[in-house]
Amino acid sequence: MPSKRVDPRSGDGQAGEVALLRRIRSRAGRGAGAEVRLGIGDDCALLRPHRGEELAVTTDLSIAGRHFRLDWHPPESVGHRALARGLSDLASMGARPVAAFLSLGLPRDLTVAQAASRSALPTGSARKRSPAGEGASWIDGFMDGLLALAADHKTPLAGGDLSESPIAIADIVLIGGVLTGKALRRSATRPGHLIYVTGALGGAAAALARLAQLAEARQSLPGHIRIPKKLEALLAPHLYPQPRIRQGLWLVQHSAASAAIDISDGLSTDLGHICEESGVAAEVDAALLPIDPAATLAQALHGGEDYELLFTAPPTARMPRKIAGVAITRIGRIVKPRPGQPAVALLTAEGRQPLGPQGWEHFSSVSFRSGLQEM
Amino acid sequence: MPSKRVDPRSGDGQAGEVALLRRIRSRAGRGAGAEVRLGIGDDCALLRPHRGEELAVTTDLSIAGRHFRLDWHPPESVGHRALARGLSDLASMGARPVAAFLSLGLPRDLTVAQAASRSALPTGSARKRSPAGEGASWIDGFMDGLLALAADHKTPLAGGDLSESPIAIADIVLIGGVLTGKALRRSATRPGHLIYVTGALGGAAAALARLAQLAEARQSLPGHIRIPKKLEALLAPHLYPQPRIRQGLWLVQHSAASAAIDISDGLSTDLGHICEESGVAAEVDAALLPIDPAATLAQALHGGEDYELLFTAPPTARMPRKIAGVAITRIGRIVKPRPGQPAVALLTAEGRQPLGPQGWEHFSSVSFRSGLQEM
Repeated sequence: MPSKRVDPRSGDGQAGEVALLRRIRSRAGRGAGAEVRLGIGDDCALLRPHRGEELAVTTDLSIAGRHFRLDWHPPESVGHRALARGLSDLASMGARPVAAFLSLGLPRDLTVAQAASRSALPTGSARKRSPAGEGASWIDGFMDGLLALAADHKTPLAGGDLSESPIAIADIVLIGGVLTGKALRRSATRPGHLIYVTGALGGAAAALARLAQLAEARQSLPGHIRIPKKLEALLAPHLYPQPRIRQGLWLVQHSAASAAIDISDGLSTDLGHICEESGVAAEVDAALLPIDPAATLAQALHGGEDYELLFTAPPTARMPRKIAGVAITRIGRIVKPRPGQPAVALLTAEGRQPLGPQGWEHFSSVSFRSGLQEM
Repeated sequence: MPSKRVDPRSGDGQAGEVALLRRIRSRAGRGAGAEVRLGIGDDCALLRPHRGEELAVTTDLSIAGRHFRLDWHPPESVGHRALARGLSDLASMGARPVAAFLSLGLPRDLTVAQAASRSALPTGSARKRSPAGEGASWIDGFMDGLLALAADHKTPLAGGDLSESPIAIADIVLIGGVLTGKALRRSATRPGHLIYVTGALGGAAAALARLAQLAEARQSLPGHIRIPKKLEALLAPHLYPQPRIRQGLWLVQHSAASAAIDISDGLSTDLGHICEESGVAAEVDAALLPIDPAATLAQALHGGEDYELLFTAPPTARMPRKIAGVAITRIGRIVKPRPGQPAVALLTAEGRQPLGPQGWEHFSSVSFRSGLQEM
């Protein structure tokens, strides 16, 4: 069909969208500060980075039906998770957040207030802080979740783009600052170095499996699945993962790590990335793994979206038991690669077995979700 | 459905996507250079900006059926236009490109080689440089168009994200550098200043109307519309718009402009933005407008996506007739706002008439495409 002239400031349905933009802008603030010289309100945002720092940049696409499901995930969780993915990439480089940008594509009905169905949603921390209240739209809940996590990490939302779309998509861009030459990379570990993880593993995969069970039990009912209050803590590792920004910063400040990555695709896959980029192999000791109490060994090894940091350090490095309140656990060591052998091996009571990459796919049986960055 | 474990390195259909990622990565290069310290290949890219510069950041979302149509636009045009939108935002701030990032969501069939239908596509400049050739997939053509324009403006593709998606979407992120404190903003013009535009106006709208005619004439036939060779030049302003990076840089280097914006939504709308942000009004002289030979006055006034620069300068400023080969035309002047009157007025032989914002919508009758940045 040919293009059509409309007045973007008026006319059927337009007022609502302009109001939505104004609402997002007012909630984000102008984003201005010492580093964000100009936030929302011009063709570009202007950032003034610190001297002596490099900039770390990452983008992460979240697509309905693929990275989240509108009938499974509360909108606050979708917003939280979108930002958490980007923050976790910064954490894995040891960068501090400078600014976030958000490109949103939304079906019209997600921008319109919904009355009753929202009471089905959990009352997690993001929800409690929500100014949206009853009758808020999906996008209000999404922004609640995103902005609550942004506030936790002092990350201004400095700009983005907004478009109507047949499906909900959110592309999050994070810009961080890291001391020049100090960024944690995948490519710098050596045989003999020890392998560590933050927090616990497999909790997100276990929570996702539980969410799938809830969905299956309610399959005949329409609308969003109900999340019982007693399950909120169990589901939190999937719905509200915590990016390890403070831990990444500590590692850079103490020059403590030789390589790092965040566990987005699963320990087996992400440790494989470090091995590939550094030209080494790795042995993981099953007995040492900090498995989430709700998770199986398989979920801890292959479950994605834990967003814990996986890093290596020379054997001489003294590693604290906790960094900023989060446990640090040694799980194995880097070894020389053996020709023809998989890079990652698992050591158990039964012996040594290859640990191929088996990262979790999200909601689709065929998939190629992957970072250009992370190839 | 519950999550499903797959090996991202093997299995049905996976190999093709990994190959696609590798292809994009190899075509983009590692993107490394003086400013891009680390391109594709880790959790984040690392940039080392110049001293004495601020960073300009912009994101632009392109969605199939909304910003482009798979049956109207050659893939090279879609890639070119996605990048052009971001580059044009940099141009309007007077920034030089430092790096681009691309988040792509693609249906599977766009990543698979197509045999015959591609011969229907035009043989524009981007196409001629294409290494993709016969049997290439849609995404190959898209990357051809994007990377050809990136090369024109020395803009490395430093990272991004990739996901399968029910519809094609591309979010482009541009990071630019601009002399600290010198960025061209919308908010700094004053009554008495003169209004200028680069190039010609309305050409993109005229081309889009012509494309719609071609589509209508072929409505009963499936597949992509055929673009006759003799129409390529006429359609170029829409299919391959040229961002005015060099002109924006010249304006900053000569401290020549008091405010600037790029014409993405139409002269009437974008001049309105300058008036709103600067608290002024504007008069446009119809007789002075550099109307594209193929366009009507209405298309020149309200047609979007010309991606020309619209800027103002004090009356004492000496403005060249051309900057870097592109014509500069004075089209009116900034005046004091009159209470209760629309900010923008058009002066014609018949007198003075209000010129409300009537930016072109793209392919949908209801729309809220707009930049968070550009509210």
